[in-house]
Amino acid sequence: MTPLADNSGLTVTAAVIGLGSMGMGMALSMRRAGLDVVGYDITPAAVDRFVAEGGRGASSPADAAKNADIVVSVVVNGAQTEAVLFGPHGIAATMKAGAVFISSATMDPAVARDLAGRAETLGLHYLDAPISGGAAKAALGELTIMASGSRQAFDAARPGLDAMAGKVYELGDAAGTGAAFKMINQLLAGVHIAAACEAISFAAKQGLDLDKVYEVITASAGNSWMFENRVPHVLTGDYTPLSSIEIFVKDLGIVQDMARSERYPAPLAAAALQMYLAAAGAGMGRDDDSSLARLYAKLSGAELPGSNEKPQSL
Amino acid sequence: MTPLADNSGLTVTAAVIGLGSMGMGMALSMRRAGLDVVGYDITPAAVDRFVAEGGRGASSPADAAKNADIVVSVVVNGAQTEAVLFGPHGIAATMKAGAVFISSATMDPAVARDLAGRAETLGLHYLDAPISGGAAKAALGELTIMASGSRQAFDAARPGLDAMAGKVYELGDAAGTGAAFKMINQLLAGVHIAAACEAISFAAKQGLDLDKVYEVITASAGNSWMFENRVPHVLTGDYTPLSSIEIFVKDLGIVQDMARSERYPAPLAAAALQMYLAAAGAGMGRDDDSSLARLYAKLSGAELPGSNEKPQSL
Repeated sequence: MTPLADNSGLTVTAAVIGLGSMGMGMALSMRRAGLDVVGYDITPAAVDRFVAEGGRGASSPADAAKNADIVVSVVVNGAQTEAVLFGPHGIAATMKAGAVFISSATMDPAVARDLAGRAETLGLHYLDAPISGGAAKAALGELTIMASGSRQAFDAARPGLDAMAGKVYELGDAAGTGAAFKMINQLLAGVHIAAACEAISFAAKQGLDLDKVYEVITASAGNSWMFENRVPHVLTGDYTPLSSIEIFVKDLGIVQDMARSERYPAPLAAAALQMYLAAAGAGMGRDDDSSLARLYAKLSGAELPGSNEKPQSL
Repeated sequence: MTPLADNSGLTVTAAVIGLGSMGMGMALSMRRAGLDVVGYDITPAAVDRFVAEGGRGASSPADAAKNADIVVSVVVNGAQTEAVLFGPHGIAATMKAGAVFISSATMDPAVARDLAGRAETLGLHYLDAPISGGAAKAALGELTIMASGSRQAFDAARPGLDAMAGKVYELGDAAGTGAAFKMINQLLAGVHIAAACEAISFAAKQGLDLDKVYEVITASAGNSWMFENRVPHVLTGDYTPLSSIEIFVKDLGIVQDMARSERYPAPLAAAALQMYLAAAGAGMGRDDDSSLARLYAKLSGAELPGSNEKPQSL
């Protein structure tokens, strides 16, 4: 494979910090596109897997990032992103001048603005670039990326974005806007999963044919992307985590913090968050987010396929 | 036009009780299909409109229904449906033996079961047949009908169903099942409209480009049929009622009554209902259901197109 080169003919080097299901797919997508990719994860086995797939491994975030033109951070939240950049062994101090930090974690827009400001003070570019699409799209290099940042940040990030994304929304020149768009999506996604689980378990409580409910609703005005995608997990009783209850404990928690800080009432998001908290408290935190249906069944006596089985995370 | 005939070669006569935007479209669709259609509405002007379109008018529900093979009831709720059938001038006593009563109103499944049982005792057929699709689909004869009832009820209703519906879901042989499916759809529809309004106004509060939010969300996992359909009303500031706030005060009220009676917790539906109640209390009850966005704006200071205008219903 001919390595991908920048305008001056040099190979573009990318570092990926965080090789979970999303980060691994993003790292491999960049490799497929010809970038020189070095990966780091706090779990050595994840680095080993990346090396087995032909990538280069690193022993620390700073080690991964030191020669990179592009650093993609695929960690869990704003606090971990801050630690990657500015923690005790943070990479901001050792990244190449003019390199770009692409931040993929879902976080409060105010945190994104703060991190971007501090990185830019050190001569780095910062792209606020939350991702959407799940592990399957990450593996295919077909993620949706909701990005905002300076023109220079976009330009420096371009080879990585082209390799990782099927669609890049360019949402403005200030960090924080990408994060805000992602939070609007997460508010809706979290509420819609809870509504789907409330509705399908209510149908079960009434003894309706649930396959028929799925058929009718997906063809009706009550449909949502999440109803269509998650209810099949409930109908088969398969709560293997594709996205977990804890993800929405986190993301609707950020929505609540933002809304409280902005004096914005968000009663739907608040009601949904309580249900995710209850599911996590009942031991289903690491199970698929459609486990909310099992919680409703448990609370009401509704009978769902597999609803009497133990949570997989226990 | 050759009149539509039944198996014995006689023209099928249908009565429509309730000539609002849905009933008028359903009556005209049956006329187009060749049925002999007589219409009644509590508002004489609606009957006049139907006559001007070539239909026959009636002076009372009993007058409309007395020779009908098919009676389609398109009133607001279960109480009005009961009054049509069993009120002081109710039609159940004077309908032809073997005729079918098609009930389109959204109602508690227990009410549908009760009405069906009482009608069947009098030798009538009862089809529990809530509708979905809105006035435009009603006018085109392309409604979705969620129907349950006896084989004889379906058989007797067939010429009417074929004329009014693009899709008829046959959901079982007992009245109540159609109503239950409709309530599941209304739970989701009501929650999704509230979530869409909560999210788009939250985006406005943060100063995001709302057209861009619409573009990104409708292509993302946060999408719903209602987000896609209703948010354009908010973006243009046009709250002309296509479906009103009061419709969801009613329908989520039924969901809450059902859920309470069945000991089923429905916190998402409950949170959404409170917002519809607040919007109605603030004077927007007859405005479009997307007026929830104006309520969120009013509560939070978010600026939406047209959000400072007076409700159209005042």
